[in-house]
This record gives sequence, C-alpha cells and structure tokens, in this order.
Amino acid sequence: MAKDAKISNVVIKRLPRYRRYLQELQKKGVEKISSNEFSSLIGYTASQIRQDLNNFGRFGQQGYGYNVDELYYEISSILGLNQKHKMIIVGAGNLGQAICNYTEYYKSGFPVEAIFEINPKLIGMTISNIMVLDYEEMVEYVEKNDIDIGIICTTMDAAQEVADRLSFAGVKGIWNFAPVDIEVPGKVALENVHLSDSLHSLAYHMSKKKKENK
Amino acid sequence: MAKDAKISNVVIKRLPRYRRYLQELQKKGVEKISSNEFSSLIGYTASQIRQDLNNFGRFGQQGYGYNVDELYYEISSILGLNQKHKMIIVGAGNLGQAICNYTEYYKSGFPVEAIFEINPKLIGMTISNIMVLDYEEMVEYVEKNDIDIGIICTTMDAAQEVADRLSFAGVKGIWNFAPVDIEVPGKVALENVHLSDSLHSLAYHMSKKKKENK
Repeated sequence: MAKDAKISNVVIKRLPRYRRYLQELQKKGVEKISSNEFSSLIGYTASQIRQDLNNFGRFGQQGYGYNVDELYYEISSILGLNQKHKMIIVGAGNLGQAICNYTEYYKSGFPVEAIFEINPKLIGMTISNIMVLDYEEMVEYVEKNDIDIGIICTTMDAAQEVADRLSFAGVKGIWNFAPVDIEVPGKVALENVHLSDSLHSLAYHMSKKKKENK
Repeated sequence: MAKDAKISNVVIKRLPRYRRYLQELQKKGVEKISSNEFSSLIGYTASQIRQDLNNFGRFGQQGYGYNVDELYYEISSILGLNQKHKMIIVGAGNLGQAICNYTEYYKSGFPVEAIFEINPKLIGMTISNIMVLDYEEMVEYVEKNDIDIGIICTTMDAAQEVADRLSFAGVKGIWNFAPVDIEVPGKVALENVHLSDSLHSLAYHMSKKKKENK
C-alpha cells in the first residue's frame, strides 16, 4: 500500500466495483479466481485487472489466481471500509427520509446517528428509528459524537451553508445529494450524487434513441 | 438541433447542470445572462459554455447574452423533459420505497404509476399513495399503460431478469439502482446509479486525506 498516493482516480473509482463482484463470489462460496475468469465476470480485460490490482501491492500468484477473501479484505481496507463511519443526515424532507431508509442497508459500517432539520414540525419525529433533531444543535452534536460523514439532503439554497457548518464542526467527509455543487475545505472529502442529472441524462438518451428508431 | 447526433456524451452530461443553474436564475427573476456571468456561476469557462451550447444551435446574441427562459426551455427540450415520462418501480424494499419517496419531487414530469414486487407480504400495500402490485403482472401493465421507464430497485441477483422483462415489455429506458451492471437491448436507454460505489469512494478519499494529514 506504499504506492497509495500515486493511484489515479480512475482506478479508485473501479475499486468499489471489484469489491461488489468479490462479495458476490464470496456468497457463492468461490475461494479463488483467475484474472481471466474475473475478466469475463466484471468486463475489464485481464491485463487491466492485473494492472489495477498491482497498484496496491502483490495480490494473486502465477498459476493460482486471486484468493477471493484476501482480495476482498484488502480492497475493503484500501477503501477504508474496515472501520466504522458515523453519519448524520441534514434535511428530513422526502430526500432525507429516502436516504435514511436507504442507508439502513449500510448500518453496520455507516450508521446514521441523527437527522437534523430546521422545520419545527419535523423536529422530534423519528425516521427508521433515527431521531430528528434541531439543526441549531448540529455543530455541537458532531463535535461531541465524533461524526465522520454529513449527508446533505437539503434544498439547493441551503446546501453550501450546511456544508460550511459541517466542515467547521469537523466532519471528514460530505455526501451531497442537494442538486448543487458545493465547496469544501481541502481536508474534507466530498462526493456528489445528482440524481436528477442522472434521470435527465436518461431522458435525453431515450429521446435520442426514439429519433434514431424513427 | 440537426447536429444532435454528433454531440459527445461529455457535453450531454453537462446539460442537466446548465438546466439546474438556469432554473435557479429563473426563480431569482433573472432574464438574461452573459456567458461570463454564467461562467462565474457554474464554474465552466465562458468559451466552454459557448462551445457546449453551440452544439445545439444558436443561443445567445453578441453583446446581449443568453435569454434565461429560452435557454432553459431549449435545454429541457433537448433533454426530452418537455414531455411526460411514466415510470414504474420494481422492488418495494428499502431502496424501492426510498426512490418512490424521492421521485415525489418529479411527479409532474416523471410520475411513478405503480410498484412491482414478488414478496406477497408487500403486494397490496401503498407507498406514497402508489399501489404495490404483483411482479407477475408487470409485463402486461407496462404494455397496457405505455410505461416509459422502469426503475430497478431489486437485489443484485434479480436485476438482470427484471431488466430483460422490462425491455421485452417495451420500456424505453431503465434507471438501475441495483448494485450490479446489467445489459439491455440497443433500443433501450440505461442509466446506472451505484450509490454504494459513491459511498465507498467517499470513504476512500476520507481515509486518504487522513493519511496525508498525519
């Protein structure tokens, strides 16, 4: 893992995908896999796979292939998934509730500890057993509870102010679902999910295919 | 729009973002904007903006700038958003429920008409006023109701079979949230949202920044 710093973002983006396929192999009881077999499964060339994984050290042996458990563990570790990340959600509207339900799935590694909201009607409710707290208490809560990730599910207008407060309070990462591009200090990691962009991109490709098929 | 066919995917991916910013300008009552002003807002260079928008015909006038309403309307039209897209969700688990709540927001342009499920315990329920129907009835429902988009919110294992049935039934697009890469016929548009990949990528960048700051 000494080479870690030099790895391109493109390779990093592929790691969760490797991990997903390895997890499936584990579930099926597969113990080892050659780069050729892995290639036909995941759709990258065998040489691409070897190159990608060589970035992180020596996995796999000539004539044996990759040990599925070992590779899964190593990729998880590179991704920082072998530790717990405590999260909070900001915004208890449709989107915040949706993300809260969705993240139930990740609760062992990425537990949602609380939801913060400015609307007094929603404060005090619970969503999937998670308390909705007053946004004014957020900074103190993050500091006291060592929260790692803030999930922004607010409107476009509020998102930057929320990101500023989260960064000030000391989160290490922000997962932004608000449909706007926000700025964060260099020490904070940021990942945007613009679901509406994805839906609109789908609509474009549908309308293009419709024209082609006329 | 005659040049439509030649436009690169990179430009297409930027259009929903242009549209989002134009929508904000509309809300604020802004009627026109120069490419320089637009540039400082959206973070692309003015020349990039001019190039992107020139792909679709002649917008904007020398010395005047872009008419916000007109540009918003044109981009919406290019994206195929000036027509209604009827959607169904497949899978009424946490993810399906989350997406159903989330899409409430889009109901004027992208209404969810029904949710399909194999688990008999969930069939007959309603989620955000949408009926959960038997998966066995899906193909007939899609055909009878001219459904445009199928949203896959199933497990990894079921996703490809669902995509096959949706394509057979005649949907024009598939929005896939199952954490697996599926294949669709050429006439069907496909957009994947791998939320877990996004979360894992965030975790990686957090762990990298932590090492850098040590």
